[in-house]
Amino acid sequence: MRIAQVAPLYERVPPPGYGGIELVVGLLTDELVRRGHEVTLFASGDSETLARLNAVHERALRLDPHVREHGIYEMMQMSRVYQRADQFDIIHSHVGCVALSYSGLVKTPTVHTLHGIFTPDNSRIYRQCAQQPFVSISDAQREPGLGLNYCSTVYNGIDSQLYQFRAESAQEPYLAFVGRISPEKGPLQAIEVARRTGWTLKMAGKVDPVDRRFYSEQVEPLIDGVQIQYLGEVSHHQKAELLGGAVATLFPITWREPFGLVMIESMACGTPVIGMALGAAPEVIRDGVTGYLVNSVDEMAERLGQIRTISRQACRDHVMSTFTVERMTDGYEAAYLQVLASRNGSLTARAKAALMGQK
Amino acid sequence: MRIAQVAPLYERVPPPGYGGIELVVGLLTDELVRRGHEVTLFASGDSETLARLNAVHERALRLDPHVREHGIYEMMQMSRVYQRADQFDIIHSHVGCVALSYSGLVKTPTVHTLHGIFTPDNSRIYRQCAQQPFVSISDAQREPGLGLNYCSTVYNGIDSQLYQFRAESAQEPYLAFVGRISPEKGPLQAIEVARRTGWTLKMAGKVDPVDRRFYSEQVEPLIDGVQIQYLGEVSHHQKAELLGGAVATLFPITWREPFGLVMIESMACGTPVIGMALGAAPEVIRDGVTGYLVNSVDEMAERLGQIRTISRQACRDHVMSTFTVERMTDGYEAAYLQVLASRNGSLTARAKAALMGQK
Repeated sequence: MRIAQVAPLYERVPPPGYGGIELVVGLLTDELVRRGHEVTLFASGDSETLARLNAVHERALRLDPHVREHGIYEMMQMSRVYQRADQFDIIHSHVGCVALSYSGLVKTPTVHTLHGIFTPDNSRIYRQCAQQPFVSISDAQREPGLGLNYCSTVYNGIDSQLYQFRAESAQEPYLAFVGRISPEKGPLQAIEVARRTGWTLKMAGKVDPVDRRFYSEQVEPLIDGVQIQYLGEVSHHQKAELLGGAVATLFPITWREPFGLVMIESMACGTPVIGMALGAAPEVIRDGVTGYLVNSVDEMAERLGQIRTISRQACRDHVMSTFTVERMTDGYEAAYLQVLASRNGSLTARAKAALMGQK
Repeated sequence: MRIAQVAPLYERVPPPGYGGIELVVGLLTDELVRRGHEVTLFASGDSETLARLNAVHERALRLDPHVREHGIYEMMQMSRVYQRADQFDIIHSHVGCVALSYSGLVKTPTVHTLHGIFTPDNSRIYRQCAQQPFVSISDAQREPGLGLNYCSTVYNGIDSQLYQFRAESAQEPYLAFVGRISPEKGPLQAIEVARRTGWTLKMAGKVDPVDRRFYSEQVEPLIDGVQIQYLGEVSHHQKAELLGGAVATLFPITWREPFGLVMIESMACGTPVIGMALGAAPEVIRDGVTGYLVNSVDEMAERLGQIRTISRQACRDHVMSTFTVERMTDGYEAAYLQVLASRNGSLTARAKAALMGQK
């Protein structure tokens, strides 16, 4: 199949640190290439990929101080993608609502994976373009009920080889928190749980400009460097170390997060997750098997008492059966075929084989 | 001809107060309808027009406190325009670079009138789409030399009936300044000229949020309500009164303004303009005939001594011959035909007549 993968330009693919969407796009793209598809990745010029790279700008926008109007670069990217639409069987967009107003203008269908959330403004354009094919990254993500034409839910996957399974946590026991230091990720709640229970908490994650004040006024004063440690923005390797060594990872989100990669990253290392039962968490954590779903900080603290009864192997197994790159890629290949079939009447076995046969 | 006019959504068409682009779009649209063309105006829902109105939102975005992501509404508008592209012979965009990434995806050509300026970021997308047909609103506007495919310069026009000619200025002599109170429009320079020469200065214009501090810290302290008066944002009627009663209008811009409607509004009332010789001013003011072109505040103050030698009738005549809605509309009709001809080989006399024959 000739596939265009369209990534956000803010961060490179794959991202050096934090950047969930770009990570997923990178993994999917490379796996599609390995399966024999002809893939063009539209992304920042410093991206690394097995696919053909098409970049409107030489590096990730967030790293370029000269770039002020990000929207202009998105438009240039859309122009590049859709001018070449007839060179692709399918266009797969990861840029949210930005692609919606273009995809109706060309014959090649676009599948939109929703990575973000709905706002009052963007809901309007989603509704206007509701008949285009959408993929949700969790069933929970569909909750606002905008009437979108969802063709599938495809869970994010990770490269399990990059997360070494550890049958035992580190000798000095601690809890992990990995995520942006912003109110919706719940760093204050994680600290609260640690302080109430006496556990050591090791935190990692970036602080976005918009969250600087939240960090300096509310989080930083609670970091003592001993019981509550903050390691800043860490590399992949450091993150895997941090998660794998923990007795449990806390996922005390305060919003309906549509997925939450850190949960599967943690479980891949064998570390169970105690998460708030919000958004996708109930679809990702198997309650009582790979961690616990809770509804409050109280309950999170309480469940910690039982955490050693969770099998670390079960956590790993859950990821290997449900959240790998291979499973994710299977899901997207099926979605592409489904969309092409719905456009062209239905695909004969032969046409299907031809599309997949370029493998 | 079946014409789509695409206006910005920030302000309604025509604008109740300040809003140069929306004013010009409104005048052009109505005149095209009067000439028999079939025109659809894509604009905010509170717009008033002789054309068919197509609106993605019920009112001007600047007036709706619930609207946070303006870009989303632009995308919805582009989607509407370009989904219907085959219903038009020509699409005429006034929204700057926003339409560039769409116009290459459909068969109907888009003419882009440049109303704004080039920035380092938007220059990149203009260069990427340089082969599309552009109209400049002054020759000076082309100066950055991006290599764009300009098909014409069409000066902005006004409805001369809305600006009553006054053979004499008001009994109490004063100078006028009309424009946004922002550094690039030169309100401080206007005040400086007034203070040096002892003239009364009457100023009108809105203060944008971004200019609040400039206004309160630098301009407001100089307003004494007697020699230096500030009337706030005024209605059309008040503006015409203010300009028409003045002995001269000052246009002390500090940037290369691509047009400057207030110059023609002033001259239409018979009031000469003393303007900095920047941007389009040398194309709009006939030096020594309808006012003066100067290079400094000193020179502006000096030229005021000769201002009574300028014929007010000559000012009016200059507008009537060059800057009317009729002249502007002639210019755009010619541009549309030129673009259609370049797309379709060349237009036969018959095809041309057919296009214009819908008059």
